[in-house]
Amino acid sequence: MDKRKLVVIALGGNAIKQAKEKGTVEEQFKNVEITCEQLVKMNALGYKLIITHGNGPQAGNLLIQQEEGKKLVPPMPLDIVGAMTQGQIGYMFQNTLQNFFGQKGKNIPITAVVTQVLVKKDDPDFNDPSKPVGPFYTEEEAKILEKEKGYIVKKVKPTSEKPWRRVVPSPEPFGIVESNCIQALVDARAIVVASGGGGIPVMKNSDGTLSGLEAVIDKDKAGNILAQEVNADIFLILTDVENAKINYGKPDEKALGTITVAEAEKYLEEGHFLAGSMGPKVAAAIRFVKAGGEKSIITSLSNAVDALEGRSGTIITK
Amino acid sequence: MDKRKLVVIALGGNAIKQAKEKGTVEEQFKNVEITCEQLVKMNALGYKLIITHGNGPQAGNLLIQQEEGKKLVPPMPLDIVGAMTQGQIGYMFQNTLQNFFGQKGKNIPITAVVTQVLVKKDDPDFNDPSKPVGPFYTEEEAKILEKEKGYIVKKVKPTSEKPWRRVVPSPEPFGIVESNCIQALVDARAIVVASGGGGIPVMKNSDGTLSGLEAVIDKDKAGNILAQEVNADIFLILTDVENAKINYGKPDEKALGTITVAEAEKYLEEGHFLAGSMGPKVAAAIRFVKAGGEKSIITSLSNAVDALEGRSGTIITK
Repeated sequence: MDKRKLVVIALGGNAIKQAKEKGTVEEQFKNVEITCEQLVKMNALGYKLIITHGNGPQAGNLLIQQEEGKKLVPPMPLDIVGAMTQGQIGYMFQNTLQNFFGQKGKNIPITAVVTQVLVKKDDPDFNDPSKPVGPFYTEEEAKILEKEKGYIVKKVKPTSEKPWRRVVPSPEPFGIVESNCIQALVDARAIVVASGGGGIPVMKNSDGTLSGLEAVIDKDKAGNILAQEVNADIFLILTDVENAKINYGKPDEKALGTITVAEAEKYLEEGHFLAGSMGPKVAAAIRFVKAGGEKSIITSLSNAVDALEGRSGTIITK
Repeated sequence: MDKRKLVVIALGGNAIKQAKEKGTVEEQFKNVEITCEQLVKMNALGYKLIITHGNGPQAGNLLIQQEEGKKLVPPMPLDIVGAMTQGQIGYMFQNTLQNFFGQKGKNIPITAVVTQVLVKKDDPDFNDPSKPVGPFYTEEEAKILEKEKGYIVKKVKPTSEKPWRRVVPSPEPFGIVESNCIQALVDARAIVVASGGGGIPVMKNSDGTLSGLEAVIDKDKAGNILAQEVNADIFLILTDVENAKINYGKPDEKALGTITVAEAEKYLEEGHFLAGSMGPKVAAAIRFVKAGGEKSIITSLSNAVDALEGRSGTIITK
């Protein structure tokens, strides 16, 4: 019986592609390497690891390529695009991690698992999609896509030459289809990359079958569900700051260290955290602890190892 | 202890995309469904399954999209393209299989594993690449790619307006990096999709690290290595004909049923099988049995279940 603590790590966007980069393969592998250095340290400290990650820039690039090639090649829907980025990013992580361990003479099984994530057909976000994806369009292009492909388009960058963009639903995840496979791999002492890009969104039909959807799922929300389903001890959300803060930008601004789930809920209700940014991370962190997890941590990549050992980051406990 | 026989199934190209199709998502899911109907029957007969598959049409389409979008988005190299198609095709198979089982009320763990396959740096194919990939080019376009990207290009369709194409090495595979993960999943009674597209080609550097390569691997050859590493009982190669044949197209043409590995080797040496087609399949089938496998089978999808039960196909035994 492997008594080590199991950590589900949700990596931030810059773990794979920095905002200012174009996203060449060299750039992406370099970022993944910086991330994996920290993951290797966590392994050395005796933690079992499941890694989940975003896919915004990779999916965005693929959607642009699909758009540019659409006269020659049929574009794939978002569920397939998500699956493709899981393969892409999963490979980069497993290759890089294996290389770090290989250099130390360690043979640790590592793989990425193609992962579907359940969402509800009647999720309110399907009626009011809000998540922009893919290329920007002129009004004319946008209207054609609206008519021909049934896309919902919104003017998201009013001052730009191409201000329009497709928006898709970002429904709440509630189950991980492949959690039994992920669990089996963890039990075999493997490091697993799973639910990449928030997972491939699927809904359950009345006959029990699963259908892929034109939607995207928040990776921290999916990471929380995954962490619960595999009974992880710790849910670690990596972002670009060391701590969540209250009274942000005010004279009494304060970085949060170790707090109880009750305190975190109070701060969340009081509106201390940004809606599209720190807010959902704190909410996911709270849900994990309330569902029985030992602790959730929100911190930056460079503080992650210290935070796991209780010396940094915002730590939410019972 | 799960005593069921383990079959590694190498699916032919038309398991996912028929030659005449454009490759829309609907077409691909429909073909996958036809294939999965047979896989479900094999499961019902008591076989453990690992599925491997080609990715030629999917990688080809993605390379065209990358080419068309290259002014906006940096194209990815072939190792990443391979990983992306593993995610894509893996998802289609695991979703479709889960749907078949779900309708029967069966909950079988199923997943695709991102898989790297080891090749040798000094494989002779790196000096004389022969496998055409991606879009066709005019001579001018081809010469630019040769100069700017170091591509090796060959005139493969002399009568066409765009007769040139990139050619890449297709080295011999000799190891599956993730075979321990695949084994762990099989031990947990999962159905696994692995080594898709012949696997992501990687070579081992002198420091023990693995580097991805601009190459492709034959899926039947990689399937054979995979079958050996997981100690499969049966290696089943699916193609578009029911049997391998000797004296093909001659008056004494004969479909091969159950033959010994010695007979198969004799026929192979005598040149009965087409070089780029049935030849390598027979060679991979022979290697599996010589390495200790119980039997290899070469047949078509519609005959696969009968062939597993000994009633169809070309079966190579000790």
